[in-house]
Amino acid sequence: MAKSQTSHETQDQLHTFLHALDSGAFDEIRRMLRGMSPAEIAKLIESSPLRARNLLWQLIDKEDEGEVLQYVNEELAAYFLRHRNTEDILSLVEGFDADDFADLLQELPHAVMRQVLDSLDDQNRYRIETILAYPEDTAGGLMDTDIITIRPDISLDVVLRYLRRHESLPDTTDNLHVVNRTGQFVGILPLTKLLIKDPGMSVREAMNSAKAIPATTSARDVAQMFEREDLVTAPVVDDNGVLLGRITIDDVVDVILEGADHSLMSMAGMDEDEDTFAPVWKTTRRRAVWLGINLLTAFLASYMIGLFEGTLEKVVALAVLMPIVASMGGIAGNQTLTLVIRGMALGHVGTANARWLLTKEISVGFLNGILWSAVVGAIAATWFNDLLLGGVLAAAMIINLLVAALAGASLPMLLDKAGIDPALSGGVILTTVTDVVGFCSFLGLATLYYA
Amino acid sequence: MAKSQTSHETQDQLHTFLHALDSGAFDEIRRMLRGMSPAEIAKLIESSPLRARNLLWQLIDKEDEGEVLQYVNEELAAYFLRHRNTEDILSLVEGFDADDFADLLQELPHAVMRQVLDSLDDQNRYRIETILAYPEDTAGGLMDTDIITIRPDISLDVVLRYLRRHESLPDTTDNLHVVNRTGQFVGILPLTKLLIKDPGMSVREAMNSAKAIPATTSARDVAQMFEREDLVTAPVVDDNGVLLGRITIDDVVDVILEGADHSLMSMAGMDEDEDTFAPVWKTTRRRAVWLGINLLTAFLASYMIGLFEGTLEKVVALAVLMPIVASMGGIAGNQTLTLVIRGMALGHVGTANARWLLTKEISVGFLNGILWSAVVGAIAATWFNDLLLGGVLAAAMIINLLVAALAGASLPMLLDKAGIDPALSGGVILTTVTDVVGFCSFLGLATLYYA
Repeated sequence: MAKSQTSHETQDQLHTFLHALDSGAFDEIRRMLRGMSPAEIAKLIESSPLRARNLLWQLIDKEDEGEVLQYVNEELAAYFLRHRNTEDILSLVEGFDADDFADLLQELPHAVMRQVLDSLDDQNRYRIETILAYPEDTAGGLMDTDIITIRPDISLDVVLRYLRRHESLPDTTDNLHVVNRTGQFVGILPLTKLLIKDPGMSVREAMNSAKAIPATTSARDVAQMFEREDLVTAPVVDDNGVLLGRITIDDVVDVILEGADHSLMSMAGMDEDEDTFAPVWKTTRRRAVWLGINLLTAFLASYMIGLFEGTLEKVVALAVLMPIVASMGGIAGNQTLTLVIRGMALGHVGTANARWLLTKEISVGFLNGILWSAVVGAIAATWFNDLLLGGVLAAAMIINLLVAALAGASLPMLLDKAGIDPALSGGVILTTVTDVVGFCSFLGLATLYYA
Repeated sequence: MAKSQTSHETQDQLHTFLHALDSGAFDEIRRMLRGMSPAEIAKLIESSPLRARNLLWQLIDKEDEGEVLQYVNEELAAYFLRHRNTEDILSLVEGFDADDFADLLQELPHAVMRQVLDSLDDQNRYRIETILAYPEDTAGGLMDTDIITIRPDISLDVVLRYLRRHESLPDTTDNLHVVNRTGQFVGILPLTKLLIKDPGMSVREAMNSAKAIPATTSARDVAQMFEREDLVTAPVVDDNGVLLGRITIDDVVDVILEGADHSLMSMAGMDEDEDTFAPVWKTTRRRAVWLGINLLTAFLASYMIGLFEGTLEKVVALAVLMPIVASMGGIAGNQTLTLVIRGMALGHVGTANARWLLTKEISVGFLNGILWSAVVGAIAATWFNDLLLGGVLAAAMIINLLVAALAGASLPMLLDKAGIDPALSGGVILTTVTDVVGFCSFLGLATLYYA
């Protein structure tokens, strides 16, 4: 019995492969690849640096290429296909679901995509073009058009005989779709019901009613619906209720993963397509932009500090202590920010509970401000033997923790309203706020008392 | 036809409910709740502050309570059940899958759990105890024990007649499980095959071989396997290959979501169980600990700055510029750290490609260091009309970006080896490193040149 493959085993395999690649033992690699499943090979390729990826791809048996291609991400699949001709591409994607095929097509140069579409037969081209008519991040873009439809007025027995004429049914078929004369969706007939109900019963009597998803629904809302209702597949309809296709859970899992990935990566100024193994120059260019944006905020903070140069010259201890105020504000604000961004992504946080959440976060900021400013103030007063200095530090910290809570809770909602992605820009703006307020409140209060 | 509910609609509903709760219009709320699905009610409850949660729970019709309970998270379900007696609990969880029931039981006080188990009939107690025998985050803890098994030597026709004797089949039944005389798993029979193959065929001829997951496999590895192979359900076996149950995709989606949530929340010093709507004092306590830890690192940075007090007194411009070096190091290091932590979670990054990745990240850090230190140095030299100051700042920034890349890429792997969660502690340690190195390299170089 085959055992499940753990991430540890992948690393071991990768080790062996990279070693064999380095020593040019290509025949050995070919033999090893033949013993692996397409999904395992795909993961190995995705975990390899660029040069090794190309080599591995060339070493796969020709007849396995199509299957491996199904499991690598679209960008990489398009990269491997970039120099192939239309005929080659068509034979490689034969086993693809219609939705995966449509996604891959969109990654190819437009001329190539057109050529591939033109060489499909009418039925297949129609299927793919139905999907391409909707943006990739909507229910229409996610759906698969390969489904089995039946009429409500026939008996289960007729359905059973109809199915027996098939060579195979589409993967993950759990329901048959019931449509009326004009193609409008009326319900689903689960295979389980087909198996246990009296064959004399009509489809209409045996079928379940089910929610159909409008094709224009956003992928994010589709994912939330699948999660909430524990769905495996769901029918997709157009504006007139006509059945277009169905969405299967494996595509929804990808949406969920990308969404989660998006929040995590955006908060560090990267996007979810960031490839760990991209070439150095490409990575450098992408990161440089982010560092440049952050540099602007760093200079703004420096400019603010510069305003208090006179005070700093008099009391150099202020320079020693000032990073504490800014950094604690940044940490506290970032916690609130992350919580609210996650809450918004899960659909728990919005305008209805915004005021409640804001009040709560400010209360937490105030309580923690009281607690830690007392500690910090006491330590600073002892360290520099200056009670006034401790008091100024404590007061600045309370101010900054309050501002951090306010900014952390309100920024994501304000940015979202302005159509800006809070996960991407929230952190930079927050840090700018907590740095500027942190330095100004501390040095400003100090200027008042030491002037 | 019911339409899918978007997160926007949830917020609108929440608005209406909170308003109705405030004005005490309980009858109106009851009527509105009756028009919603259990999943919608559950989401509404999870999106409400504590007081509103309790009220909403009390306003649900008694007969709907069990269904709503299935859709709220375990902690909240256990909270609602905390004052109910055994009989009540049993009737409320009647519709639960065995695995969800087991998860909920583990959230209840031990005595209550024991009482509930003791009042189950033998078959059900055996089922639940099989699941409880494995930790919650393993395949055994995730599995559902309600499955249909058949023998390999009977004909499909016998299977069809056997199924017709059932009132209903378990939810998400896509395959029947084939086991031998001693209960060992030998393969699966997809319902689709049962419907299209010749009824005279034997199960052995029609069945597919399939990977069975050992019950001790970690939930994370199970999730990776489902993602990679696009599975909907998978059989679970014990050490002897005996079939114990099956894992369904809806439980795996929860694992995937928790995993992604874990990285995001941990990096801000929170955990994935953090409840956006927890009471103020509880949130304050949790966050206070994290602020305290970060305070230690802030004081360490201050201590380092304090070592250069003499230099700062001479050249106050150093105090103005020093946050730039530390902050740019922190930003750059955090990007590398996030990328590596994500790569590790996806199973792409490990010992085999560690050296390659380290080299790459250091190259990126060096190139960006050259670029931005030139910019920063030029600006500083112009601002303070001091070429030497610009040079010192540029040199310190190159050093800190190199150290940031080194720390960002190596910390997650070192921490993981030491059994420490990199997502939780990686950021704090990284910031400590980039702050200390940033301040020390800048002020240290300045001391050398201005002394």
